[in-house]
Amino acid sequence: MSSVIIYKSKLFANLNIIKNTINTKIAAVLKDNAYGHGIEEISNLLVEFGIESVFVKNNFEAHKIKDKFRHITILYPSELESVANNVYLSITSLESIAKIPPHTGVELKVNIGMNRNGIESKDLLTALQSIKSQNLRLIGVFAHNAFGDSSGSNANNTSQEFIQSQNLFQTIKSQTLDFVAKYNLPRPRFHSLSSSGALKVRDIDDDLVRIGIAMYGYLGTSLPIASSLQPIGEVWADKVCTRFLKKGDCVGYEGKYIMQDDAFVSSYDVGYGDGLFRLNEKHNLSTKEGFKILPRMSMDSTSIISSKDKVCILYNANKVAQIFDTIPYEIWCKISPFIKRIVKE
Amino acid sequence: MSSVIIYKSKLFANLNIIKNTINTKIAAVLKDNAYGHGIEEISNLLVEFGIESVFVKNNFEAHKIKDKFRHITILYPSELESVANNVYLSITSLESIAKIPPHTGVELKVNIGMNRNGIESKDLLTALQSIKSQNLRLIGVFAHNAFGDSSGSNANNTSQEFIQSQNLFQTIKSQTLDFVAKYNLPRPRFHSLSSSGALKVRDIDDDLVRIGIAMYGYLGTSLPIASSLQPIGEVWADKVCTRFLKKGDCVGYEGKYIMQDDAFVSSYDVGYGDGLFRLNEKHNLSTKEGFKILPRMSMDSTSIISSKDKVCILYNANKVAQIFDTIPYEIWCKISPFIKRIVKE
Repeated sequence: MSSVIIYKSKLFANLNIIKNTINTKIAAVLKDNAYGHGIEEISNLLVEFGIESVFVKNNFEAHKIKDKFRHITILYPSELESVANNVYLSITSLESIAKIPPHTGVELKVNIGMNRNGIESKDLLTALQSIKSQNLRLIGVFAHNAFGDSSGSNANNTSQEFIQSQNLFQTIKSQTLDFVAKYNLPRPRFHSLSSSGALKVRDIDDDLVRIGIAMYGYLGTSLPIASSLQPIGEVWADKVCTRFLKKGDCVGYEGKYIMQDDAFVSSYDVGYGDGLFRLNEKHNLSTKEGFKILPRMSMDSTSIISSKDKVCILYNANKVAQIFDTIPYEIWCKISPFIKRIVKE
Repeated sequence: MSSVIIYKSKLFANLNIIKNTINTKIAAVLKDNAYGHGIEEISNLLVEFGIESVFVKNNFEAHKIKDKFRHITILYPSELESVANNVYLSITSLESIAKIPPHTGVELKVNIGMNRNGIESKDLLTALQSIKSQNLRLIGVFAHNAFGDSSGSNANNTSQEFIQSQNLFQTIKSQTLDFVAKYNLPRPRFHSLSSSGALKVRDIDDDLVRIGIAMYGYLGTSLPIASSLQPIGEVWADKVCTRFLKKGDCVGYEGKYIMQDDAFVSSYDVGYGDGLFRLNEKHNLSTKEGFKILPRMSMDSTSIISSKDKVCILYNANKVAQIFDTIPYEIWCKISPFIKRIVKE
C-alpha cells in the first residue's frame, strides 16, 4: 500500500534553521492538509517541537486539531460559527464582522498591496470599531506581503514593493495600537510575513511569522538558506505486478512508451488520481532510486523500469514543479489525503 | 462555502445515451472518488438509475459504498483481507492469489497488450488453477484494452492494436470457459472495454462494459456521441471579498496581473489547494459566466474580475485540460474530496 513518509528529523532540522535565522516566534501554516503532508501527523510533531500558534484553511481543518495548539487561526472560515476559545476566525471583509458571534476570537486581515484578501487599510478604524461593537476578541491584525519572492538590490534582497508593503503594515500597527490604547483593550498580535519574506528580513518587528513552505523543506527564493532546508516528505509506492518486456514492446495507454532495451517493468499503486502530476511522453522523470518512470501515468498506477517491491516516486518537488511549470506547493498540496501518512525518525 | 454541484439529469442523460448505444450491461467506474465527483453522491444516483455493478479503487472506497450495489470490485486492493460477499478483489499477479482468504470473490485481470497490470495470458490456466486450489470464488475475468482512444480505418474506427487486444481477450474467454466447464464451476463474467472502446464497438460480446469518463460527461475520442454527453459536475466558489481596482493596479503574488481597466475584483474561496490547476500568467481562462480568472491562482483563493457572490470556476474540464496539456480525467479527479458535493436535479 502506498504511503507518505514524513521524516521528523528533517522537519525539526528545518524548524531549527528557521528559528536560528529569525528573531521572532514561528507560527506554523497547516492549511491544505499541511500542504499535503498530513495535518494530524504534522501537528503532533509541531506540538513536540513546541509550536504554539498555527494557521489552518477552514473550520473543518481547525476541528481536526482543535486540542493540540494554544492558538489556531482559520484563514478562510467556511462558517462564521461559534468556535472554541483557542480558535480564531480571520476577518477578510468589513461585511463579515456583523455575522460573527460575540466573544469569538478574530484576526483582522488587511490588504497591504496584494489586492487579494483583507479589508483596505483606509477601512482599518471602521473595522476595529465594528469588532469592538460586535464584542469580538481581537487576537491579531495581519497581512500577507505578496513580494517575499521578488528580489531587490538592497542588503536584504527585498524589492521596492516588498518594502512599501512592510511600511504600510507599520502604519496599520501604529493605528491599531492607538485604537486599543484608547479603549483599554488587550494588545493584539501582529504578523505580515511568510517563509521567504521572513527569512530575507530576519530582524523582524512582528510578533510572529507564518512559516509554511520552508518548514516542509522548500523555498521559492534564491536565498543561501534554501539549500540547507530538506524536504520532509516522500511518496512511496508499492508494486502491483512485474513483467519482463523486450526492446520494442509498448507500455500503457495507446502504447505510448516503447521499450528501449529488454527490462523488468513493474506497475506501482499510485497514479495521478492519488495527486501526482500525470506524466506524459514529453516528460522525463525518475524515482529517487533512479528508475525511469514511464509515460503515460494512469489514474491509479504507474509503470516504472524496476522490479523492487517499493519505490520512492516523489522526493524532490522542485524537480517535478519545474517539469510541470508550477511550484512545489502545488505538487505537494495535491497529494491525496487518503494515502496513509507514516512518521519516521 | 465552495461546492461541487452534481446534476442528476445530466448523469441520467449520459447513462441513457450510453445504454441506447451499446448492447450489454453498464457497470460504473467509481474509483478515485468517482473521478473526483464524490463517490457517495454518485453512488446514490447510480442506485436510483439501476446500476448493479461498480468498480472502485481500493478497500477504503469499497467500504464507503458497501451496502449500495450487488457487485463491487476493488481494482487495486490495498489489503488482501476478508471482504463482504458482494465485494470482490482484483487479482493482478500470480503471487497475490495465495494471500487471499478462501471463499473471497475475485476477478482475474489479464494483460492483453497494455503491459501494465494483470497476469500474462500464457499464465491464465496456472492462475485459474490457483484460484480453484485456494477456494476462491471466480466472479470475473477481465482486461483493459489500452487502445480505445486510438483511431483506425475500419467501420468501428478502431486501431489494429485494439483489435489484436480484443482477439486475445476472446481466446482468454474460451480458455476460461473450458476450464470452468471441466471443473463444473460457475461461469464468470467477462469484461474488457471502458468508455471509448465500448462506444466505438457498440455490438459487444462481453457481459458488461466499465463506464467511467463518459458517464461523467467526457470522452477522449472524436466519436460523434462525444458531443451529446454533458459534463455532470461543476465547481462553484464563494466570494471572500471585493475591491475596486484601477487600471494599472497589480493583483496577487509578485503583482503578476496588472489591471487592464478599472474594475471590481473579488477573491473566491477555492484555489489550487482545492485541486484546481494553478493558473499562471501564461494561461487564459474564464468562469462559466465569462469572468476573467486572474493569474496567479493562490492555494486557497482565486481573484476574478467579478463582484458576484458565487461563480462557476470549473464547468468544462476539456478546456482546462487543454491549457494544462492533460486530460479531463486528471482535472476532475484532483478536485478535493473536502469540498461539499451538492446534488441538483
